[in-house]
This record gives sequence, C-alpha cells and structure tokens, in this order.
Amino acid sequence: MRTYLDCIPCLLHQALRAARLSTSDEQKIKQVLDEVGSMIKSIPLENPPPATARIIYRKIKEITGNPDPYRKHKNRSTRQALALYPGLKKKVKQSRERLLTAVKMAIVGNIIDFGVNQPLSVEAEIESLLSKDLNYCDYDQFKADLHNADEVLYIGDNAGETVFDRILIDVLKKPVTYVVRSEPVINDATCADAVLAGLDRIATLVTSGTDAPGTVLATCSASFRKKFSRSRLIISKGQGNFEALSNEKMPLYFLLIAKCPVIARDMGVNLNDMILKRASH
Amino acid sequence: MRTYLDCIPCLLHQALRAARLSTSDEQKIKQVLDEVGSMIKSIPLENPPPATARIIYRKIKEITGNPDPYRKHKNRSTRQALALYPGLKKKVKQSRERLLTAVKMAIVGNIIDFGVNQPLSVEAEIESLLSKDLNYCDYDQFKADLHNADEVLYIGDNAGETVFDRILIDVLKKPVTYVVRSEPVINDATCADAVLAGLDRIATLVTSGTDAPGTVLATCSASFRKKFSRSRLIISKGQGNFEALSNEKMPLYFLLIAKCPVIARDMGVNLNDMILKRASH
Repeated sequence: MRTYLDCIPCLLHQALRAARLSTSDEQKIKQVLDEVGSMIKSIPLENPPPATARIIYRKIKEITGNPDPYRKHKNRSTRQALALYPGLKKKVKQSRERLLTAVKMAIVGNIIDFGVNQPLSVEAEIESLLSKDLNYCDYDQFKADLHNADEVLYIGDNAGETVFDRILIDVLKKPVTYVVRSEPVINDATCADAVLAGLDRIATLVTSGTDAPGTVLATCSASFRKKFSRSRLIISKGQGNFEALSNEKMPLYFLLIAKCPVIARDMGVNLNDMILKRASH
Repeated sequence: MRTYLDCIPCLLHQALRAARLSTSDEQKIKQVLDEVGSMIKSIPLENPPPATARIIYRKIKEITGNPDPYRKHKNRSTRQALALYPGLKKKVKQSRERLLTAVKMAIVGNIIDFGVNQPLSVEAEIESLLSKDLNYCDYDQFKADLHNADEVLYIGDNAGETVFDRILIDVLKKPVTYVVRSEPVINDATCADAVLAGLDRIATLVTSGTDAPGTVLATCSASFRKKFSRSRLIISKGQGNFEALSNEKMPLYFLLIAKCPVIARDMGVNLNDMILKRASH
C-alpha cells in the first residue's frame, strides 16, 4: 500500500506517542517532532508507510536512547492474552468449524495494538468481536490452499496477538515457521515476545531481518526473502504487514482488523471490519 | 496559552485539511505538508498556537493560491445560524435571566467551528447544549463588570457564531465594538462575515489587523492594540482568542466551548465544557 497524505500527520502523532513513552525529557520529545517534521519532504508517497515508520522509530531510539519503550506494554499484552488462552482454546474445541473459529480468533487478536491512536478495552472488545462474523472472508480458498500446502509461513504482528496466533497454529496441522521482527519497534513481536507467548513450542521462530513495523521486503534479510518467495502459503497478520505486502503476487492471506480509516479505504472495506483476504494474483 | 507538544501533530493535520479544501492538486498538498513539517523546528513552544497557525495558513495560501478556502463553509454557517436566529431570540425573550441565557447562546454558538478535527451536527448539538448549564461560570462578576462599563469590546471568532454573538450584543445594552480578523483564516469571521450576520447594524465593526486564527496582539495593528489596552470590558470568543489572550491581565471574559483536550487541560476544565471565565488579574 502506498503512503497516503493522511498517513503523514498520523506518523507525526505516533512519533509523539512513542517519544513520550521513551523519555520524559520535553526537549528530546520536541527534537523528535523537529526531526520527523523535516523528514516529511523526503517521504516517498509510493513507499508503504512502514518503510517510513522504520526510519522514524530509528530516529526516536537515537534521540531518546530508549531501545524498547513498549517493553512493558508488550509484556502486559502477552500476559493478558495468555490469561485468556485456555478459555479461547476451549471455544475453538467446542465449535463446529474449528479452523474458521481459530482464524477468527487470530484476527480478533489483532485488536491488541497499542500502536494505533485509540486504545481499546481489550477483553470487552474481544468478546464483542468474537460474536460477529468476518466482514471479508476468503475462507473457502484459504482452506483449500492450506490443504495443498506442505508448510505455512506465518508473519506475526503485535506482542499479545501472538497468543491468538498460537490458537490458529494449533489447528493448522502443518509445520509452521513463525516470523517476528528483528528489533523492537512499537509493540511488534520480537523473538522474546514470541517465546513468552509459547510459540517456540509449536513453530520454528525466524526473524525477518527488518526493524520496520511491517514486513518491508527491501529491508528484510536475504534469507528471509528467499524463504518468503518460495512459500506456498503465507499468513500475514495485521495492518503493518498488509501495508508492506499488499502488492505482492503471492499465495498470501491477510488477517487483520481494519482499524485505520486509510487502510480500510485502500482495501475497500469498512472501518473495524474483520478481514481474511487473499492477496490479488 | 503556550504551544504544547500535542499541538504540533494537530497543526499538521489542520494544514492537511485546509490544503485539501484549497486545492485538489495532490503535489501541492504534499508540498504544504513538507513545508509545515520543516517549520516544526522553528515553532517556539512559548508562543500561543495561533501565532504558529498564522504562518502555516499564510504558507497554505501561498502554495495553493487560494486566499479563502473556507468561504463556502463560512457562508453556509452564517446562513444556518441566521435560520436559527428568530427561534433563539424568542428563547432569550422568554427566559427569566435574559443576559445569562444570551451569554449561554453566545457560548453555544462557538460549536460552529470547522477548524477543529471533528465536525459536529450543528443543530442537534446546539439544542443539546442549550439544555445544559455552563460548566465554568463567572457570571456574577461579568454582570457587575458589564454594569460598570461604558462600552464593550467584543472579539469575534467564527463565521456563523457571529449570529449568536448578535443575540448577546442585543441584550448587553451598551455600545459595542465588534472585532474581526483582517484577512480570511480558517473559518474565522472577517468584516464580510460580520456584515452577512447583521452585526454592522448593532455594533461598530473593526478589524484587529491580524490574520492569525486568534488575537495574537503582537500581530495586531497599533490602533487595535490601543483600543484593547484601554478597554474596561472585553469579551473574547472561542479557543483561538483564548489561546492568544489567556495571559493578558485585563478585564477579559473568555466565552468558549473547550473542544480541544489540550485547551481543556490548560484551563483546568473538562472536554466540551461550556465556559464563561474571567482572565486572571
């Protein structure tokens, strides 16, 4: 997905939030806004927003000296999600179409995102979302593609959401490689977050090589790009990965909640819709 | 009021809205964001936000070539308000404390503001607000000061809101000088807007000399500053004028709805509170 003009004030707003979480020194926070402000003119609108966000979050780390401001948030998210895990697992077991229910849970888990502007009461939101149907659903095709695939490449998104991914991975019945960011960025899952969520017990963990808040392939490692291009079935979680990968002609399924109005418009869906969408090919 | 860090992404967001209203040329809109972005480092946090907004809106005019993008909005607002005028006037006449009711209406009129991020359904909002009490009310002091004043300097805010100001001016029973911006900026009232609202029939119209969206004295004309400093009773409408004048030690009354969370926090009130507040002195 390209960068829209609306993304620019939003990136500045996100930078302010991250800078505040990184330091209480107002001068340093102002410096972050100054630097991000002067970067605007070099933002290529044809690039996906996470490519720009990557440079912004690097700058915030550099100015504030805080390498992982969302650490506490991430740990709390994972713990919150782990507390819900047994109950959600039981729901899947009791459901008629286990795979579909688990897909839905993986999507619902995408609500745990402190990177967007309006935090939501997590538990209440999860309950409410689970009671709804998916708004965009390429499920039949997903099921067929899964059946034909030997293995699955699963690109994770946020810490906490990882626990919901575990529920889906449990029912895929295929070998899964679970992909995390190489460095902390916003609340995106790194290796440590995936381990805390227990994913190392059911999947092979790999890092994509990027510190962008989305799998921007040009910033990923050569080994990851190779793995990606050879995959027969890829699950991509969340908005950042969608933004980065939406133009790839691959057997890619995007699982997300369209929390951002710009992304919703780009996808042709409504705000807060729950999506399982196959990439165009 | 000083500029808070939160004001900075908000100013960029407002610039995007104004640029879009000014032109459909995406390159020019991007250029506005580029230029405003690089201005961030020179924003002095000790200045009131309208001082910075003035420079931003000048830049938008320069880049887009559109001197008055809110012209249609302003005319529509004034016409909407004029349609409500007879009914509101009747309400004042039938009320027990006419001055207080008219003060409340002048404050409620402040909801007509396309410069903030969330436009509201105007009529519905007005009805709902009129049914509530003021949240912060220096009314007794205002009444006493009005009684002792020979004349009133009334600093207007938005087009449309001007019609509600007329209702208050009608019951002040004092000679009123009504102050408008010298040049169009956002939806702030200029001379033309005040005339359309009928204010020339009941007050002396003057321009403040500024094109800032708030009465930033340093940018006003010498003659206005003289008038201001000699006034015995000043009514200041809206957020922009509050931001610009909040530190003045004058017999100043701020009438506004605290639509912005940063202003509400600065004033020590809640978001959307209706305020009649005397300046500290």
